[in-house]
Amino acid sequence: MTGTSSGRLIGVGVGPGDPELLTLKAVRALGAADVVAYFAKLGNGSHARAIAHAHFRTGIEEMPLFYPVTTEMPKDEAPYRTAITAFYDASAASVAAHLDAGRTVAVLSEGDPLFYGSYMHLHVRLADRYPTQVIAGVTGMSGCWSQAGAPIAQGDDVLSVLPGTLPEAELARRLGEADAAVIMKVGRNLPKIRRALEASGRLDRALYVERGTMTGSLCERLATRGEAPAPYFAIVLVPGWRERA
Amino acid sequence: MTGTSSGRLIGVGVGPGDPELLTLKAVRALGAADVVAYFAKLGNGSHARAIAHAHFRTGIEEMPLFYPVTTEMPKDEAPYRTAITAFYDASAASVAAHLDAGRTVAVLSEGDPLFYGSYMHLHVRLADRYPTQVIAGVTGMSGCWSQAGAPIAQGDDVLSVLPGTLPEAELARRLGEADAAVIMKVGRNLPKIRRALEASGRLDRALYVERGTMTGSLCERLATRGEAPAPYFAIVLVPGWRERA
Repeated sequence: MTGTSSGRLIGVGVGPGDPELLTLKAVRALGAADVVAYFAKLGNGSHARAIAHAHFRTGIEEMPLFYPVTTEMPKDEAPYRTAITAFYDASAASVAAHLDAGRTVAVLSEGDPLFYGSYMHLHVRLADRYPTQVIAGVTGMSGCWSQAGAPIAQGDDVLSVLPGTLPEAELARRLGEADAAVIMKVGRNLPKIRRALEASGRLDRALYVERGTMTGSLCERLATRGEAPAPYFAIVLVPGWRERA
Repeated sequence: MTGTSSGRLIGVGVGPGDPELLTLKAVRALGAADVVAYFAKLGNGSHARAIAHAHFRTGIEEMPLFYPVTTEMPKDEAPYRTAITAFYDASAASVAAHLDAGRTVAVLSEGDPLFYGSYMHLHVRLADRYPTQVIAGVTGMSGCWSQAGAPIAQGDDVLSVLPGTLPEAELARRLGEADAAVIMKVGRNLPKIRRALEASGRLDRALYVERGTMTGSLCERLATRGEAPAPYFAIVLVPGWRERA
């Protein structure tokens, strides 16, 4: 892929955590790329790299993009917005330098690149300027309901994907209007999520899933789970399909 | 896997259409299974089989499960319900006979097995009686937005997955309340979907995708697409993410 006038940007979905849930297309892209880039937290490494690194081409150039601030900062405050925007701009410029030199850059993304993925911040800055390909991946939520063996939606079910950051009343209202739901960004929002599920009559069906498809994953009914703190990336599932046919 | 007292049921997601979007785990399962089962329409073959057959173990026993009626029949009428329930019961019994004989049966599912997938009809009948594993797959909707290069949802976006079969007013209301949306079961519902998108102020953003990740796929803005008939499995995307950071 090198030697052409411009390189190629590839957004590579690496799936929910189990390294075997990489696609053949992702493996092939990692075996051919000149550079592999991934977002990471200082000290924490990159989950996406841990999932995919067995398939890196020998001699591939690694480009970790370290977040300047933690994702736990309030996202609607100006200092955070300014810092993170500057970081994404600088990251895109670093990737563009490789693309200008004719290199193929694979950007790793946990789950699916265009579904709540960090890759999107590079995509919107670069995809209109360079040849770009996105390799779809298995989402984190698919990994969770597969691990739980929970049929999530069927037929004419309406499925809502909701952030746990929503106000309690809005969460309850939206849960009450959906046949099936996935609640993301659980963490410290869990007590609120539990109350919203109870208010909407959905608590009995709700499943709590932590680290779906990864080592140490767990899945339990939310109704009987204790009040222990939940990690940010835990997911709550409300399966919608209750018929047998 | 043969020779044990009971076989194993594996729901295998084969992804949205591009054979390279199979996961490594799906490929391994197909290389080890004794029997591979898949739903199919008489005369039409099986899309899932077409996607995955290159990875079937030599000598694997194929078990097509032919639908007795077309999916175009009105699904809420009693004769359809009776016929389709009997068909799923009989299909589950056929799979169970292999499991009782100690064989590992892989059941193919387009996209992800537990996300609007036909595999679910076997899962709910068998998973509590036999060791069962579900291998998550890339969904059809991920394939479509990846093909379109359209970031679908980010941050605190609410994403709604809606069947195009909903009444027009309900569709418009739900579209108006979601940041991002995926509309499935398009087909003959397209004119109604277009009106609902217009009423909810979402038509300008809407993308029409046909055969995402497959040969002959196409993606265009719905607003400028003509009135030509759409296939049942076309998808309409309403990307939610419009900020750059």
